[in-house]
Amino acid sequence: MRVFIAGIDGYLGWALAQYLTEAGHMVGGIDSSCRRVCVSEMDSHSAIPIGNMSERETDFYTEYGFPIFLEHGNIIVYRALERALQLFLPDVIVHLAEMPSAPYSMISAERAAFTHTNNLIGTLNMLFIMRDHFPNVHLVKLGTMGEYGTPNIDIPEGEFDLEYRGRRTRAIFPRKPGSFYHATKVHDTYNIEMACRLWGLRSTDIMQGVVYGTRIGDKPFAPGLATRFDFDATFGTAINRFCAQAIIGEPITPYGNGHQKRGFLPLRDSMQCLRLIIENPPAAGEYRTVNQFEDVYDITALAEKVQTVYGNCEIRNLVNPRMEEEDHYYNPDHQKLFDLGYKPTVDMITEIANMLDDLKPHKDRILEKKHVLTPDVRWDGTKKRMEYCDEK
Amino acid sequence: MRVFIAGIDGYLGWALAQYLTEAGHMVGGIDSSCRRVCVSEMDSHSAIPIGNMSERETDFYTEYGFPIFLEHGNIIVYRALERALQLFLPDVIVHLAEMPSAPYSMISAERAAFTHTNNLIGTLNMLFIMRDHFPNVHLVKLGTMGEYGTPNIDIPEGEFDLEYRGRRTRAIFPRKPGSFYHATKVHDTYNIEMACRLWGLRSTDIMQGVVYGTRIGDKPFAPGLATRFDFDATFGTAINRFCAQAIIGEPITPYGNGHQKRGFLPLRDSMQCLRLIIENPPAAGEYRTVNQFEDVYDITALAEKVQTVYGNCEIRNLVNPRMEEEDHYYNPDHQKLFDLGYKPTVDMITEIANMLDDLKPHKDRILEKKHVLTPDVRWDGTKKRMEYCDEK
Repeated sequence: MRVFIAGIDGYLGWALAQYLTEAGHMVGGIDSSCRRVCVSEMDSHSAIPIGNMSERETDFYTEYGFPIFLEHGNIIVYRALERALQLFLPDVIVHLAEMPSAPYSMISAERAAFTHTNNLIGTLNMLFIMRDHFPNVHLVKLGTMGEYGTPNIDIPEGEFDLEYRGRRTRAIFPRKPGSFYHATKVHDTYNIEMACRLWGLRSTDIMQGVVYGTRIGDKPFAPGLATRFDFDATFGTAINRFCAQAIIGEPITPYGNGHQKRGFLPLRDSMQCLRLIIENPPAAGEYRTVNQFEDVYDITALAEKVQTVYGNCEIRNLVNPRMEEEDHYYNPDHQKLFDLGYKPTVDMITEIANMLDDLKPHKDRILEKKHVLTPDVRWDGTKKRMEYCDEK
Repeated sequence: MRVFIAGIDGYLGWALAQYLTEAGHMVGGIDSSCRRVCVSEMDSHSAIPIGNMSERETDFYTEYGFPIFLEHGNIIVYRALERALQLFLPDVIVHLAEMPSAPYSMISAERAAFTHTNNLIGTLNMLFIMRDHFPNVHLVKLGTMGEYGTPNIDIPEGEFDLEYRGRRTRAIFPRKPGSFYHATKVHDTYNIEMACRLWGLRSTDIMQGVVYGTRIGDKPFAPGLATRFDFDATFGTAINRFCAQAIIGEPITPYGNGHQKRGFLPLRDSMQCLRLIIENPPAAGEYRTVNQFEDVYDITALAEKVQTVYGNCEIRNLVNPRMEEEDHYYNPDHQKLFDLGYKPTVDMITEIANMLDDLKPHKDRILEKKHVLTPDVRWDGTKKRMEYCDEK
């Protein structure tokens, strides 16, 4: 299949380009370098060195023996996206081209606005272009498990049968985002569901858990082809920060009491799930939601796993910069991908060991930017580096 | 109270400025002329002549004997909104500054994007400015009954107790918008609910039905102070179009089979409800939703009422340019405003008679723009003037 990846230069995008190429699909994509620019803005960089887009093009050719279609452009510009899609002629579009950081969206009104513009207008352009030029193409869109928040009830996969005062309907399961980034994913959900309903488009909206890992198979990426690894408090996830902290001998810092529960999956499983979704499209007009994660863990469990694997590191909780529930019920469904054939490939301990192995050679790059490991974006609008809970 | 109206130059905004002034409140506001510009873009104008913002300022002074704070600025510009609010120092903000047309938002990707940017960024700026400068101010925000769509179940007032698999939670009632305009109102709902939850802001989100009417009391507006009256197919509501059609001797044209049901209320009742909401603010941190309408009618009933009042006019259904359910269940709650003291003031027949009286002197202005009465924005993306059902 011809798979177009919007956001092909990002953490998931560049990994997926290679994973799908190895699976025999023809891959191309577009990227505005949004992720690179935003991470620089945070005065950080990828711990694992990555080439620029031209270098990636060259290294891809060297590894696979044929060129990859890589467009440098911004999908919030309608013509840029339209042109790229008309050149590539996709069977499937995987839309990963969104600003993915909750703290970034909470820095200021301006960053919240940027997150809305970047994430929503890109998706709107996609939907209109699909309606007018590619009505049968399958849109695989990345949402987040964070759309649901942590409600005191089970979480179905996106839609559910709602019985209310004795009558029934099918409805979008209520969302409860915890940041403006998460809110933009909720907004996308409503926009995409409507486009499928009104225009007969087909889409799979993926409520993905937190992805971790540095590999798409047993071995690391080929030379020059590694995907990025962010460890700053704005773009790095909890596991990434914990691994980076362990490597430079800093305490591992869960936020708050560390009881927050989330769904997680290794990068290679994310790739496997995306492939299953791509190869099993929904019907025309169908808006399909999947909850994509391997299992639920609390943040302390992650910290302890990193400690177990690495040994010799301290866990020290940091005051939580976010406003979120720390002790809560959490029971999301995640059956649809198993029904499509998803088989979890590795246990978390093995994958964390791989991550630490892949990061160790780049200890200097983490040390150089050590200051970005401590969050300073607080949900209440103040900008102060967080202190340890035991210092408070 | 000091009431700041964002969107003070619009249909509701300008009427509300006068209604609240007469009720003894101190009113001011900001407007970017968005509505005037968009209506011009549709090659239309207000059937009832209105002054520009400077003329309105002067006429307001003449009528009330003191000046009104009127800022010409765009709330999507953070500094413009911040400055206006810091000059005015409101107790309440009424946010009406959104692009209000479903067809306009469906014209093209560019118009859908504009609707998102205009509506969402303005609201985001409002929330951040409130958090940082006016945390106790009450935000009265205009949503729409259209957020809910027409689900096959009763519609509560915004939030509800959701029981799911034996557990309970309080949740946002699922939305089902029918245009990108309606979708932006849904997005606002999620953003505002989150801001109240995270930041302790207080807001009333009004799911308002369709407002009709040309008066805020028994008499027409004072000279020069009338609020606008749009009758084009993009910015004019069904009742407005029907009245304009009657006056120029054209058939009254419900869309489709005309069985679509919606909630409606006269302009003066909308004013009364807004006043009740303003004078009865929610608690800090409370996100309150009200469904604001007097009663539910189907579109054919409206057409027949206009026919009854005006006499001598034909009803002729037009092919529906929208994608919407025409035969559907519709039973929304609307109790909260009655609990606050809302008393419907006039019956629909009386109000339609008033509208027709106020419009008759301006028959020439409707005739001049007669072509805009027939919709040409179709939800499927084509642009063709709709034909009559009986011609199809």
